[in-house]
Amino acid sequence: MTADVQAADPFGWLERAAAERARAGLTRRLRPRGRHEDVLDLAGNDYLGLTRHPVVTRAAADAAVRWGAGATGSRLVTGSTALHGELEAELTDFHGAEAALVFSSGFAANLGMVTALSGAGTHLVCDRYNHASLIDATRLAKASGARVSLFGHADAAAARAALAAAAEPRRLVVSDTVFSVDGDLADVAGLARACREHGAALVLDDAHGLGVLGDSGAGALSAAGLSGAGDVVVSVTLSKSLGAQGGAVLGPRGVIRHLAETARTFVFDTGLAPASAGGALAALRLLRAEPERAARVRSTARRLAAGLTAAGLRTGAPGAAVVSVRAPSPDAAVQWARRCLDAGVRVGCFRPPSVPDGHSRLRLTARADLTEDEIGRALEVVTATRPEGLRRS
Amino acid sequence: MTADVQAADPFGWLERAAAERARAGLTRRLRPRGRHEDVLDLAGNDYLGLTRHPVVTRAAADAAVRWGAGATGSRLVTGSTALHGELEAELTDFHGAEAALVFSSGFAANLGMVTALSGAGTHLVCDRYNHASLIDATRLAKASGARVSLFGHADAAAARAALAAAAEPRRLVVSDTVFSVDGDLADVAGLARACREHGAALVLDDAHGLGVLGDSGAGALSAAGLSGAGDVVVSVTLSKSLGAQGGAVLGPRGVIRHLAETARTFVFDTGLAPASAGGALAALRLLRAEPERAARVRSTARRLAAGLTAAGLRTGAPGAAVVSVRAPSPDAAVQWARRCLDAGVRVGCFRPPSVPDGHSRLRLTARADLTEDEIGRALEVVTATRPEGLRRS
Repeated sequence: MTADVQAADPFGWLERAAAERARAGLTRRLRPRGRHEDVLDLAGNDYLGLTRHPVVTRAAADAAVRWGAGATGSRLVTGSTALHGELEAELTDFHGAEAALVFSSGFAANLGMVTALSGAGTHLVCDRYNHASLIDATRLAKASGARVSLFGHADAAAARAALAAAAEPRRLVVSDTVFSVDGDLADVAGLARACREHGAALVLDDAHGLGVLGDSGAGALSAAGLSGAGDVVVSVTLSKSLGAQGGAVLGPRGVIRHLAETARTFVFDTGLAPASAGGALAALRLLRAEPERAARVRSTARRLAAGLTAAGLRTGAPGAAVVSVRAPSPDAAVQWARRCLDAGVRVGCFRPPSVPDGHSRLRLTARADLTEDEIGRALEVVTATRPEGLRRS
Repeated sequence: MTADVQAADPFGWLERAAAERARAGLTRRLRPRGRHEDVLDLAGNDYLGLTRHPVVTRAAADAAVRWGAGATGSRLVTGSTALHGELEAELTDFHGAEAALVFSSGFAANLGMVTALSGAGTHLVCDRYNHASLIDATRLAKASGARVSLFGHADAAAARAALAAAAEPRRLVVSDTVFSVDGDLADVAGLARACREHGAALVLDDAHGLGVLGDSGAGALSAAGLSGAGDVVVSVTLSKSLGAQGGAVLGPRGVIRHLAETARTFVFDTGLAPASAGGALAALRLLRAEPERAARVRSTARRLAAGLTAAGLRTGAPGAAVVSVRAPSPDAAVQWARRCLDAGVRVGCFRPPSVPDGHSRLRLTARADLTEDEIGRALEVVTATRPEGLRRS
């Protein structure tokens, strides 16, 4: 029997899968970063530059010492501390929502938000380019009896048409606010109008909007004049603008109570670590004290995009902090990003399946604390290292 | 149109759902705990008593200060620090596996592990009482083309029969090692034999086994003599015995590489916060220095179960740290837990849908740092507060 066991390696197929990825230029490698790298970071999502802010790291450290390194259980058992409550109250107040619920990640928040509001008799109308976490949430909702339609990317009229065609008693439009790969925006106001015409709910992922959109950084709902709307639910992340880890859902009190009682990624998951809750809370208070950080991110993103466009590269108009630059192929994108890193600038490199349209690109993120010199250096490096096919003639 | 909007509240159904939960005794409430409660905790999953250990909280705090409050991005972009690599190396070494991969939660680890190893041509053979995260993982796998069979709880012979009946080229047996509600054990050795007979892979969730099972607390694989097996993959959590937050998958190098490149909850999620990675690493090193903590948890659980049984209550034989006590109804369980808390002892209260068999119960968890006095007090309070229906005649 031992010989049979050796012969039948149940993971033998993984080598073939890895070889296929390699052939397609889609190999991914973990490259842990050190503490004191002399690298300019335009790849992370620390949009407000708060992850390493001493007030934030000190608050995270204090929370670990005061409350423990972990939450010790589900939020419904032992995993809710007064600190979690304080964070939820501050998020609620800042966002203008009725209530908030903190999850262990933004991914978990999206899974919980969508699945708890779905089930048989529900129709989900989803943007075609939604984030992976919303897509997986939709798959789970479908498994529990919901119907799902996709609409053309960022096209509120298409969403309206899909709603009109849906016969189910409960209908939800599900969309990112800022699409994480290209940094373009959903037409939130248009989606909200479509929902209201049809008695549907609007369910948004504002992971890349919180801290960036709206005058004070309160996010996409604030920017669209929808703060506190009774028919809108929104998820945010604590790991981007708020510099920590975790996610939250904000919305009407009844929705939040429903999620706390039924969302599987809330009920069956350990609560967010106190250090992350404390760090996010401190970052949120910093943002409220210095709301100009939000406008600064947006103007920096626009300057990066303008500089790249002026150099002949193909970028979109950034709606938030993300600037994406098309690369001719997955391999070319990897090599371009590597040349940038060799020149001291870290940029993101997005390839299939992380790009909805199949086109590989570099992804640059603006930060509120980038200096003039740093913006100039980033533009210089990204431009000078471009692949042959993108050289200016 | 405004009147229509008011009339058609898309969340109106939630009130009815809440009323139904209330009628069934299934209302859940968040009750944040304070910092200095004079309560004996037998509800959390801090099995080794390390969450508030000064070495662990200090390590978490130091990591936040040194590395930042957050990881700033996906592990594949900016979210892998040298600290994450150090934690993965220590987990690998302790577990006797070839490699490890840290996720932002145990829930995310299970979703990623199962879905990345599934797809069309895969058959998942699953214990009927698996944890919610494995169930959701299985639903996602099914959505991507895998077939799923359930087998009778903890019944390796039934798993073997299901494998024999499965025709797909790739077959996986998926099971918890310690079932979180009742604390009973899977027959890991029996499942492994069944897998080897059929060339299948064994995929385990050792969330409640790590730090508790095996002589040194290395978990269920070590206890079953399967450390380092090339056909077994196991997830663990960093939020129970290791006192922090996060999850990890351990297994053959090829499997871990595959997960790092393709698991959606890894690729599309922000990396674990440095404070949680640092806290878990310090806890793991403490466990390795004081391996007697593992045996102490198990003996404490057995003493709790023996004391409750002697008092006439219905408990199972605890295989790990969890001791469950049957309650006559959901309402009775809630009131029982509340009376315990009023008497200074916090216990868990599990009701549908958190219990696979529909029976509500109290759930007590042993901790390595419970004193003799505390064990006695817990037994006295749980026994004295039992519901009328469970009074000894």
